[in-house]
Amino acid sequence: MSFDAKFHDRDFKSVGTRPLRPDGVDKVTGRARYGADYNLPGQLVGCILRSPHAHARIVRIDASRALALKGVKAVVTAEDLPDLTDGDASLYAVLDNCMAREKAFYDGHAVAAVAAIDARVARAALKLIDVEYEVLPHVVDVDAAAAPDAPLLHDDVFTGGIDPAPETPSNVANRSEFGHGDVEAGFAQADVIVERSYKTEQTHQGYIEPHACVASVNPDGTAEMWVCTQGHFVFRQTCADLLGMDVSKLRVTSSEIGGGFGGKTHVWAEPVALALSRKAGRPVKLVMSRDEVFRASGPTSATSIDVRIGARKDGTITAAEATLRYSCGPYPDMWAELGAMTSFACYGLENVKTVGFEVLVNRPKTAAYRAPSAPMAAFAVESAVDELAHKIGMDPVEFRIKNAAQEGSRSSYGPVYGPIGIGPTLEASRTHPHMSAPLGPNQGRGMACGFWFNFGGQTCCDLNVAADGTVALAVGTVDVGGARASLSLVAAEELGIPYEDVKAAVADTASLGYNDMTDGSRGTFSSSMAAISAARNAIAVMRERAAIMWDIPVEDVGWEDGQAIALGDKHGNRPPLTIKEIAAEAGKTGGPIAGHSELVADGAGVSFATHICDVEVDPETGATRVLRYTVIQDAGKAVHPAYVEGQFQGGAAQGIGWALNEEYVYGDDGRLQNPGFLDYRIPVCSDLPMIDTQILEIPNPNHPYGIRGVGETSIVPPLAAIANAVSNAVGVRMTHIPMSPPRILAALEGQG
Amino acid sequence: MSFDAKFHDRDFKSVGTRPLRPDGVDKVTGRARYGADYNLPGQLVGCILRSPHAHARIVRIDASRALALKGVKAVVTAEDLPDLTDGDASLYAVLDNCMAREKAFYDGHAVAAVAAIDARVARAALKLIDVEYEVLPHVVDVDAAAAPDAPLLHDDVFTGGIDPAPETPSNVANRSEFGHGDVEAGFAQADVIVERSYKTEQTHQGYIEPHACVASVNPDGTAEMWVCTQGHFVFRQTCADLLGMDVSKLRVTSSEIGGGFGGKTHVWAEPVALALSRKAGRPVKLVMSRDEVFRASGPTSATSIDVRIGARKDGTITAAEATLRYSCGPYPDMWAELGAMTSFACYGLENVKTVGFEVLVNRPKTAAYRAPSAPMAAFAVESAVDELAHKIGMDPVEFRIKNAAQEGSRSSYGPVYGPIGIGPTLEASRTHPHMSAPLGPNQGRGMACGFWFNFGGQTCCDLNVAADGTVALAVGTVDVGGARASLSLVAAEELGIPYEDVKAAVADTASLGYNDMTDGSRGTFSSSMAAISAARNAIAVMRERAAIMWDIPVEDVGWEDGQAIALGDKHGNRPPLTIKEIAAEAGKTGGPIAGHSELVADGAGVSFATHICDVEVDPETGATRVLRYTVIQDAGKAVHPAYVEGQFQGGAAQGIGWALNEEYVYGDDGRLQNPGFLDYRIPVCSDLPMIDTQILEIPNPNHPYGIRGVGETSIVPPLAAIANAVSNAVGVRMTHIPMSPPRILAALEGQG
Repeated sequence: MSFDAKFHDRDFKSVGTRPLRPDGVDKVTGRARYGADYNLPGQLVGCILRSPHAHARIVRIDASRALALKGVKAVVTAEDLPDLTDGDASLYAVLDNCMAREKAFYDGHAVAAVAAIDARVARAALKLIDVEYEVLPHVVDVDAAAAPDAPLLHDDVFTGGIDPAPETPSNVANRSEFGHGDVEAGFAQADVIVERSYKTEQTHQGYIEPHACVASVNPDGTAEMWVCTQGHFVFRQTCADLLGMDVSKLRVTSSEIGGGFGGKTHVWAEPVALALSRKAGRPVKLVMSRDEVFRASGPTSATSIDVRIGARKDGTITAAEATLRYSCGPYPDMWAELGAMTSFACYGLENVKTVGFEVLVNRPKTAAYRAPSAPMAAFAVESAVDELAHKIGMDPVEFRIKNAAQEGSRSSYGPVYGPIGIGPTLEASRTHPHMSAPLGPNQGRGMACGFWFNFGGQTCCDLNVAADGTVALAVGTVDVGGARASLSLVAAEELGIPYEDVKAAVADTASLGYNDMTDGSRGTFSSSMAAISAARNAIAVMRERAAIMWDIPVEDVGWEDGQAIALGDKHGNRPPLTIKEIAAEAGKTGGPIAGHSELVADGAGVSFATHICDVEVDPETGATRVLRYTVIQDAGKAVHPAYVEGQFQGGAAQGIGWALNEEYVYGDDGRLQNPGFLDYRIPVCSDLPMIDTQILEIPNPNHPYGIRGVGETSIVPPLAAIANAVSNAVGVRMTHIPMSPPRILAALEGQG
Repeated sequence: MSFDAKFHDRDFKSVGTRPLRPDGVDKVTGRARYGADYNLPGQLVGCILRSPHAHARIVRIDASRALALKGVKAVVTAEDLPDLTDGDASLYAVLDNCMAREKAFYDGHAVAAVAAIDARVARAALKLIDVEYEVLPHVVDVDAAAAPDAPLLHDDVFTGGIDPAPETPSNVANRSEFGHGDVEAGFAQADVIVERSYKTEQTHQGYIEPHACVASVNPDGTAEMWVCTQGHFVFRQTCADLLGMDVSKLRVTSSEIGGGFGGKTHVWAEPVALALSRKAGRPVKLVMSRDEVFRASGPTSATSIDVRIGARKDGTITAAEATLRYSCGPYPDMWAELGAMTSFACYGLENVKTVGFEVLVNRPKTAAYRAPSAPMAAFAVESAVDELAHKIGMDPVEFRIKNAAQEGSRSSYGPVYGPIGIGPTLEASRTHPHMSAPLGPNQGRGMACGFWFNFGGQTCCDLNVAADGTVALAVGTVDVGGARASLSLVAAEELGIPYEDVKAAVADTASLGYNDMTDGSRGTFSSSMAAISAARNAIAVMRERAAIMWDIPVEDVGWEDGQAIALGDKHGNRPPLTIKEIAAEAGKTGGPIAGHSELVADGAGVSFATHICDVEVDPETGATRVLRYTVIQDAGKAVHPAYVEGQFQGGAAQGIGWALNEEYVYGDDGRLQNPGFLDYRIPVCSDLPMIDTQILEIPNPNHPYGIRGVGETSIVPPLAAIANAVSNAVGVRMTHIPMSPPRILAALEGQG
């Protein structure tokens, strides 16, 4: 798909306004239907039996007592989800995580599931399934797991790309590397070098809505599923692959979503629900409890990152390198690669190198979480950058401006940048009133930058014009953050009609072509390209129809402000034909009017942000309070600025929780000790200041309206910004996230 | 849309086979979701208060006692459905029928509705609504209503087209006329003339599933509705018009349908459910009882028809005319026009004239019923034709063959016929073994012909190819008789892939462009044109993708048997690329693969049938038993012959019920006395013989596969065929349908 790059210079009418959210009334009145709000006649309740052990061989599963319980309709184990993955390791990991095969790899790993007439019976049945385990030694800490003597999760992991190649298996997997130049030569030129190790703990996305689905498999091999997901087309594909179904015979409808943040890009219980339904011959509803959400879905990597950065006294960074170890749960993945890719992306560097490793641990399979892997890398790098600026006596903003990547810079992960926003966000931060506001005792200010590359991917859109000229927009990217509003604005803009005349809906998989996930900040970027393309195709149809109505050549019909206009003088002073007039005649001029688009949205615009943060640390308790927080981010064209601001604020809020409080706490037995919102504390309103936002709009030249993505970058800087602020407040460099009161007290004691 | 007319000569691979029904398993296992199988959280139950009077002025409605009942959330009357019809008489009739305004026009006419927390409360509330009526004189019989002294339903009906124009209002409305030639001159040439009057009673479609919907209107003006309908796009349009909504903001999903036969092409309670939901602020489920279905939905016209036909002794019809009076309930409509149009369509006539009139009666608003209006006209005409053949001593089949319309004949309603099937079905009946089988005492054989014009209209189809090469077909014509099977077969045929690789689904109104109703036998005809067009568009995309994969010009890529093939010699012996191989690479070659179509399906093929029937009449009881029944019909190309045969059989079965038993029985008070299946007796299996079928395939030249429509014509001949058989058995010409035992006994007594 290619567009006129100058198109975003247009004078926007709808795009950039802030109409009411189309899903707002539904959500505040309780009508919106989330994953658990669907029901089918005759449905059963599914429940999953989970390993109480962090690492154990499954010797035997005997479900006979459960099956004998009245009301139990089916029990499934790994036998009911046979391995059809045909050597696809990534898909096998999904399968094995959904239902453990030989071993349970973590506390909470699914080992069996029950479908019964109600939840009471299903839960009772779980207790009647006899599982014989051979408990194995376990390891949950990322550094301990990477150590040579660690208990091994798999005996066949020999990390590639390490020279010499290891002769014994380990928990270290999937080496990845980025960079260019000669790092050692660069360090040789440095006047000052900062070298430090950092650690972050595992967090959860903390979405309010637990995973929920209703699955219904027919004896004829067709099936339907209603599910809370960030990508029903991907869920369809994955579940069809795992269950051996034809893709088109599984119809998946996405519900409203009560938060996803990456955690709902992965299937967890959905294949199990389908397997239960297939076996029981009835629909099965499966809703995770909060305990299950924590124990068996979604967490980020815990990380251990070594950073080394050198600079000359004038502030020029001469070399930068990082080694990143990301825990991935029981299966090698790509988390460290994303960390290694994004680490130094804010800077234009001559010599840079990053190396990432996955580390297998007895924890749940790691999931994507908003700009996955970037916040931890940014914490490490931006902490070191800050420390380096201090060491050479430069203001940290000036130091970053001096080294910021620019248009034409070769990024640390390869591509050469086009027009980018890191410099502008830094410049804006320098002059922002927040930066010069006075601070009190025990208070500190920090700032940090962040980057996310965003992506595009496959997207479809169907645009149908009704007989009254109103427009139904069928999109396939689940609306996690305002897609229905932004895509309606874009369609209205392109067609030249009021926003109120467009109604967007997320179509099910039977009604639209394949769409990639709503992730990678791709929703509005990619679906707006499809919506614009579909609208242009519809305009072409409407021009043809106007030509028929006027009986003039279609070449003589233009389109302006939602109307067909007769071009040139030869057709007289015809009054324009509005979309409503053209639509009303559609049945007589060729049939329903529509525009469609299927495309791969290339050219996602990279995104940068600079955050400023003030904190106050109570030296007696170690408690930190965020006093003021400012997000400055390049959105490209902001389609619906209120949603953009909401994304900025939401990312910052999640980053604040991650920085200060959130972590998975494991006992010596490898069991999770805080699987609930009372003990795993995400920030609530009273924990947060008003988060100020400043939107910069540096157009993405690859998008007709200049749109980038906005959802993820805002979670990248907070860990570092807050760490820098806390470090400034307490006078000790904080290197371990979260900076919870015990860790701050420990740091203060270490200083004292 | 134009197609190569020779295309139907192809060697079909999928079309014409009889695969298992894709909806079969769902239906036999009880999973299929019909109108009443949907539920929304927080939904209320809606109930409608109906007039107990056949004709009454509504003086006052006081709902205060109902509203005071605990659990009642809303009461709506006509005030809540204000007249927004802007002079559209047809739409006003729908509105007034949904909720009576000034007058209740029939027993069962809705006057108010309640939404309450459950059915018990809702029903109790109905009894607390005080309606003050001024009861008016009423008329239910079609002839009585047409008489000059009849009580008038409206005081402003002055039938147009009658010369001289009437000076006083009447219940006779909407004169329509068809024909050509000089009828009186024709009769002057006749040797024999038959002139007779016929009457048919009002029947109901007898669908097993009552009307049901769930409506949910949001405070922001958007709404959703789940409904059992033959056309959710039309329901959307009508409801949006009646409630003053933007069309695109009302999302309508059609359920499975437990029979429609035309009766579910009209809205009855749906606008009321929406009005209740809008007022109550909660979803409302409204399911009609059987009593309501009979009293307030769906019946056919009762008719009174005068026929006059003249022929020479050689069997040539010289003139034919008919005057048709069709009851329409309280609002003028188009039923008599359809009767007048179809009356003589089987014959090639020099001089023919038909005149139709709507007659207003105090009965429910008449609805479409399978080939609406044609069975009654065929009963009259085919009875007279039969009598005329007897009078001139010709075999009734030979007589019809002599006069049958042919390719090039000018039809009695105007158009010149293309290739048609009336001659072939008559020829087939002549040689059918049924025609020469012996008959016993009190037995008679009859035959008759029937015609339906079929139509096309607006249709859309989206065809999406999944990554595994299976295909999802989104169609918009509700599947009342096998559309998912037939359209999957057509798409498979066109793409060159197995039927099993296609999954069709009926898309909701938010996901597809506008589709006309599934009526007029247009479902498979029109949607197959759209499916073929969409498939061709998808093939064009796949040829482009193959060209990219091969790096050769797209002009050099052909498509055969579900595979792209390299054309010519210059590209070597490349093995073909299958649809699965092309689909697997779609993400790398341009994105998801789809084909779309929006069209007006012109060129529906007219349809003819000849039925043969044997009956035995018990002279003591007057009871008639159908002994043998044969349907011979031109289907055009039969896409799924088992479904076609099912349509033939279903139409015949309904015609048998209409001919022998079914009728609305009114008391002197104008109240319906048999609103239930115990007293309104539709045929059950034990009432019917096996209905034999013979499919003729005379291709429709306007369709690429030669498809006509098959759903309706089969109900046209039975009334006449059975009447001719009964007349032959008892020796008395039967002129009043149904030929129930009392009417037969009366006829026998009249003879005696």
